[in-house]
Amino acid sequence: MHPKTMMQSLHFSLPSWLPLFADSWRGGDEPQRMAFVIQAARQNVLEGSGGPFAAGVFEQDSGALLSLGVNLVTAEQLSMLHAEMVAIAFAQRVLGRRDLGRRGSPALEIVTSVEPCAMCYGAIPWSGLGKVVSGATDADARAIGFDEGPKPTDWTRPLVERGIAVTTQVMRDEAKSVLDDYARSGGIIYSPCDRE
Amino acid sequence: MHPKTMMQSLHFSLPSWLPLFADSWRGGDEPQRMAFVIQAARQNVLEGSGGPFAAGVFEQDSGALLSLGVNLVTAEQLSMLHAEMVAIAFAQRVLGRRDLGRRGSPALEIVTSVEPCAMCYGAIPWSGLGKVVSGATDADARAIGFDEGPKPTDWTRPLVERGIAVTTQVMRDEAKSVLDDYARSGGIIYSPCDRE
Repeated sequence: MHPKTMMQSLHFSLPSWLPLFADSWRGGDEPQRMAFVIQAARQNVLEGSGGPFAAGVFEQDSGALLSLGVNLVTAEQLSMLHAEMVAIAFAQRVLGRRDLGRRGSPALEIVTSVEPCAMCYGAIPWSGLGKVVSGATDADARAIGFDEGPKPTDWTRPLVERGIAVTTQVMRDEAKSVLDDYARSGGIIYSPCDRE
Repeated sequence: MHPKTMMQSLHFSLPSWLPLFADSWRGGDEPQRMAFVIQAARQNVLEGSGGPFAAGVFEQDSGALLSLGVNLVTAEQLSMLHAEMVAIAFAQRVLGRRDLGRRGSPALEIVTSVEPCAMCYGAIPWSGLGKVVSGATDADARAIGFDEGPKPTDWTRPLVERGIAVTTQVMRDEAKSVLDDYARSGGIIYSPCDRE
């Protein structure tokens, strides 16, 4: 490996449609936040910018939107760029700090259109987020061929034990319909890589 | 959220010392690869560029180094930037594809100075990597206060079941000594965030 050829920095970008979409958020309660995130997942598929997944980081009380992430795995060819990872990273950049749970700051939550996979699940405690709200389930993702990875069956408990609230199956049917439409349209089921 | 203020892209950088360090790799077998990665972890602490963790992606047969990552959590204030995530992302950028396990290409492995945490563990299957080699154990990391997250106790089995080989405790004592020296020097134990 030669220093001249070794990359020193890495960047990735949100789809061009996303900032304007995010700007259309007018606030609302948890089901409304989920509906908005589900619509972002659908938009990501329609625009051809990635997989059928989206996640947003919101202030729990005010509903203010801090960041909106979509799945960028195929667009950026980086396997870590699941919607939750993207939303968390941008939220950390917006605030300028890695700890999204700092005392004295508005409590934050991640609203994700599908239950987090094993990676995103493991990422949540490190982010400091105080709450997870999910739509479609692991089973819904697996039903169209997405592997959710080696994650405990009772995945919510270790989060709750760490003081992270979890609400699942918010607008599950609507979230699932994005997955199902994606599969029907022949979308790339990218997770399992070539080996399987 | 206003489009004018919403960030559209995100970038992060390796420490300035790293490319030259990576260039000093002269090849070698698995213990030598691990010794090199451990030295990178130590260097990351000495240079003040992050936590006591490093990981490299190597070609399994030739030992060629594809990417070298160090922990950038505090430097970049992004909780996802564990050494393994950094190494995987840069390897994917070097090859221009997310699947590090493509048939017909040299088989790749990640050599990590400490067993992967819950997030990095979940990230490995998505990367396509065919092998994981680790040094210090979860218990060694926890002994100095790093939480490894909600990860199965028998974490190697689900990887092996997915066709990913795992070798643990390669040069464990040397890897552990980096953790212990870091803790003794008063290094930031960043994982648990403010809430704990």
